Amino acid sequence: MIDTPLVLEPIGWVESPLVDPDRAPLQGDEGAPDAWLVFDDRVSAGLSELRAGTAVLVFTWLDRARRDVLRVHPRGDETRPETGVFSTRSPDRPNPIGLHRVEIVAIDGLRVQVRNLEALDGTPVLDVKPILGGTGER
Amino acid sequence: MIDTPLVLEPIGWVESPLVDPDRAPLQGDEGAPDAWLVFDDRVSAGLSELRAGTAVLVFTWLDRARRDVLRVHPRGDETRPETGVFSTRSPDRPNPIGLHRVEIVAIDGLRVQVRNLEALDGTPVLDVKPILGGTGER
Repeated sequence: MIDTPLVLEPIGWVESPLVDPDRAPLQGDEGAPDAWLVFDDRVSAGLSELRAGTAVLVFTWLDRARRDVLRVHPRGDETRPETGVFSTRSPDRPNPIGLHRVEIVAIDGLRVQVRNLEALDGTPVLDVKPILGGTGER
Repeated sequence: MIDTPLVLEPIGWVESPLVDPDRAPLQGDEGAPDAWLVFDDRVSAGLSELRAGTAVLVFTWLDRARRDVLRVHPRGDETRPETGVFSTRSPDRPNPIGLHRVEIVAIDGLRVQVRNLEALDGTPVLDVKPILGGTGER
């Protein structure tokens, strides 16, 4: 057990034409636009090996989500039975961490353009991880 | 921009035979043992639809990681050139969120047994998400 609070420090922010949660696509491959990840200068040394044309996992903090929700109708569709949030991709959940698989389109210093990101403008970015290849390629 | 701290609330904890970071496998498919996720009672309503035999994504907080590291030798191998952490799966990174793809082996109330988890005993669990199928299966 630990008793210090687990505090996230955003490493950057999403810059996107998506500003209205009610009009945003539910997943990146459902018509989400290109967006920019704008990183904080203090993490620049961590970014050097990112390359355009590669796919990465982006972790965000879904800051407009509700954290007191444990059951939802999947995809907001009330004809579908209520389901525990840990069996859905609902943004509403106790720790609203967004996971997005995106392709890097372009890199301009601390700004990284990615394809098909469904996160809203202003969303904090928490982490970027490579997609793991087979055990021989690590 | 937001000015309130982003504070994670663990939803559970890992119970594992892995206690020594220096002896833990680097990835789940590199010989990691079975482990139990022990969830907090307050999130039980979110768990009801988890099923043995399915694969899920587990998010953890790698509480023994260093947060001030931006460049590492991949896999701790000093013959490999230093690389920005956002191009590696190093646990050491500004926000040490662990992402683990695991198969659920058994469920016993608030306890969920999973196969091949490389997280250490006592690691906080943050979230569980389903693996997304194709756009027709959501």
